[in-house]
Amino acid sequence: MTQAIEQPKTLSTGAALGATFSALRCRECGETYELGAKHVCEDVCFGPLEVVYDYDLIRQRVSRASIEAGPKSIWRYKDFLPVASDNPIDVGTGMTPLLKADRLARRLGLRSLYIKNDAVNMPTLSFKDRVVSIALSRARELGFSTVSCASTGNLANSTAAIAAHAGLDCCVFIPADLEAGKVLGTLIYNPTVMAVKGNYDQVNRLCSEVANTQGWGFVNINLRPYYSEGSKTLGYEVVEQLGWQLPDHIVAPLASGSLFTKIYKGFQEFVKTGLVDAKDVRFSGAQAEGCSPISQAFKEGRDFVTPVKPNTIAKSIAIGNPADGIYALDIARKTNGNIEDVTDAEIIDGIKLLAETEGIFTETAGGTTIAVLKKLVEAGKIDPDETTVAYITGNGLKTQEAVQGYIGEPLTIEPKLDSFERALERARTLERLDWQQTSV
Amino acid sequence: MTQAIEQPKTLSTGAALGATFSALRCRECGETYELGAKHVCEDVCFGPLEVVYDYDLIRQRVSRASIEAGPKSIWRYKDFLPVASDNPIDVGTGMTPLLKADRLARRLGLRSLYIKNDAVNMPTLSFKDRVVSIALSRARELGFSTVSCASTGNLANSTAAIAAHAGLDCCVFIPADLEAGKVLGTLIYNPTVMAVKGNYDQVNRLCSEVANTQGWGFVNINLRPYYSEGSKTLGYEVVEQLGWQLPDHIVAPLASGSLFTKIYKGFQEFVKTGLVDAKDVRFSGAQAEGCSPISQAFKEGRDFVTPVKPNTIAKSIAIGNPADGIYALDIARKTNGNIEDVTDAEIIDGIKLLAETEGIFTETAGGTTIAVLKKLVEAGKIDPDETTVAYITGNGLKTQEAVQGYIGEPLTIEPKLDSFERALERARTLERLDWQQTSV
Ligand SMILES: [Zn+2]
Ligand SMILES: [Zn+2]
Repeated sequence: MTQAIEQPKTLSTGAALGATFSALRCRECGETYELGAKHVCEDVCFGPLEVVYDYDLIRQRVSRASIEAGPKSIWRYKDFLPVASDNPIDVGTGMTPLLKADRLARRLGLRSLYIKNDAVNMPTLSFKDRVVSIALSRARELGFSTVSCASTGNLANSTAAIAAHAGLDCCVFIPADLEAGKVLGTLIYNPTVMAVKGNYDQVNRLCSEVANTQGWGFVNINLRPYYSEGSKTLGYEVVEQLGWQLPDHIVAPLASGSLFTKIYKGFQEFVKTGLVDAKDVRFSGAQAEGCSPISQAFKEGRDFVTPVKPNTIAKSIAIGNPADGIYALDIARKTNGNIEDVTDAEIIDGIKLLAETEGIFTETAGGTTIAVLKKLVEAGKIDPDETTVAYITGNGLKTQEAVQGYIGEPLTIEPKLDSFERALERARTLERLDWQQTSV
Repeated sequence: MTQAIEQPKTLSTGAALGATFSALRCRECGETYELGAKHVCEDVCFGPLEVVYDYDLIRQRVSRASIEAGPKSIWRYKDFLPVASDNPIDVGTGMTPLLKADRLARRLGLRSLYIKNDAVNMPTLSFKDRVVSIALSRARELGFSTVSCASTGNLANSTAAIAAHAGLDCCVFIPADLEAGKVLGTLIYNPTVMAVKGNYDQVNRLCSEVANTQGWGFVNINLRPYYSEGSKTLGYEVVEQLGWQLPDHIVAPLASGSLFTKIYKGFQEFVKTGLVDAKDVRFSGAQAEGCSPISQAFKEGRDFVTPVKPNTIAKSIAIGNPADGIYALDIARKTNGNIEDVTDAEIIDGIKLLAETEGIFTETAGGTTIAVLKKLVEAGKIDPDETTVAYITGNGLKTQEAVQGYIGEPLTIEPKLDSFERALERARTLERLDWQQTSV
């Protein structure tokens, strides 16, 4: 390489005047570090680093009213987020609908079900827009001019789009076998795209090496302590949208396990700062059978996660070696929740069920969540009267291959009334047959 | 057909106590009609019917504060909309971001450009969710149990999704040659889909016949007076999001011309009810060259529109016989705006330009708007200092075919550092070549 290694222009500690966060701290051993681009406890134990907040300061500063008066995006919770600037990258991310899902609830036999719908998150239709908005805002503060990521697809879409908006250079890494919609939905923003012949875990390992050699800001590697905090907003928003109450039970997909643990942290922080009354919330996790290392550990009563080689249509959550798997296990157990997995066929049925009953078209990860929700209800592991929130994390238009061939077909007709009437007759006959078969 | 024709269960006039609308009135001759499922002045002149509002009542009832305290959806403007129920179908439609597009503005040579981004509208990622939310809420009030539409794709997505959420039966009509993403994005909600061998205008004619024989609620035919009012919210939101100010210039796509005229009406209503100060706003319209009947009439100084046979990749706006074409022409002329058309190649460049500069991936209709915006700026027809709003009406994930082959490709690498470094070197060499060619 003739090109010099790019270095952050400033090495700001980020502890700007008035910021509510002041350091990074190791989750395992408690060692603290300056607020740089660092994610591992290098000096002691190689545990993950987390952002340290001043909750007394946050408590003084925020109220329900101050939050409600904020922007209609994740930045209404800025005091809880690791970005110092008053001018973060705001592309309208967050504040997605919390939909009362009465028709799906009836179908499943529940009485109080909500869908948190990040299938319509902005700008790229997945919850990743939350974590990337935080990571790139922080990357800019730390002086990076090139940002990067290791992605199963959604993260690449989001990093490329938000980098384009912010005018940052961008290079993303994806597995070479990704769904066409996710590749195109990244290339359109004109980043450099590296398609790696390997699975996500291999992509991720390569990126760790690149992070060390290129001096780029990798949103989910060296910027991970900031990045992962973005998922807390999925907890905050549900509390606010339920009228400042905690739900009784949440069901969310498990990939690395980070999303799950950060929703939990979001709920806790709102209790800790007096924004909501404490309450036991049960946490249940969803995996695809073809990549279910956390579910397997849960069922076998293990407190460690054995890596697996993914083989499922649910590529966006197919992480065989989940970094936060043990923390997710711990939360499911201590909250009296469950972790369950479902087959690819059940995932497709889950996508269709949500679309038919609620008008929400989700990708395979969302289908996994709905299928697990169904399975848990059928097993008596969700009480019909619990206020339950299912997290839908991405949009079905990106994984069209997954359902192609499993949905109906249009009835092709001539532009004439009699052609239409014959087709309608056929459709009604078919529906009656369906109905007779179902009721037998 | 053995099946009896379905009839609305009630024939409510809809003039519920306290409603702000009271009748339908012919736009051409002024004849009034009861508030039923009717869109044409059958008794006199066959002109289009419009909803009549009591603006004095609206003025008494609404204020900036009352709107700001409303739901974060189109229903915050309910007093301006033709739905009587206090419980309309609210799936979070509307209140999409108005993004300050500084990077695109710099590229074009503008100083105050905004993008109204309905590519992330809820639930189905196009402005059609606005009109369908209104139409189906009204259909339910009028007693319809089956809803339908004639669609170029986005409308079918939206009608099927919102009908699913509301539990209404649904049958949609589309041209048989529609983009795969739009067909799948309809079928997933499990409606009956009729694929008509013909163009949109033929589909539309067939649907008019079906509306007369089946007694269904066709959102854009017999429910059209209610339906079309939904587009006014694209005007209201921009005013509110600009801090209760009108813009100087808007650029919007022209299909039937309805969107364009309703944005105009929305601005006027806000002035009329004292919510915003009056100001001259220039209205410019965008068409694809392959279906540009309104643009042709504008350029030739005609006050009538000659139907054309569409031939463009911008299928969602390819209406060869635009119902509201003459009204759109009139508005562009009297506001000192323009109507322009662009080639399919320019449309693709428009999609890429918006994605690269702002991180927004739009479909062909949005590409048309951006390409026309560029063309108007280059022709000196938009002043660099005008506060200009470009309306992006749908999401690029639905028309992936349009850009496939016109964007870059990923660099395929082995999961090894040296493979990555060689690829990066190649990419940088290519970029330098690009740059040298550009600067020659
Ligand atoms: Zn440590
Ligand atoms: Zn008339």
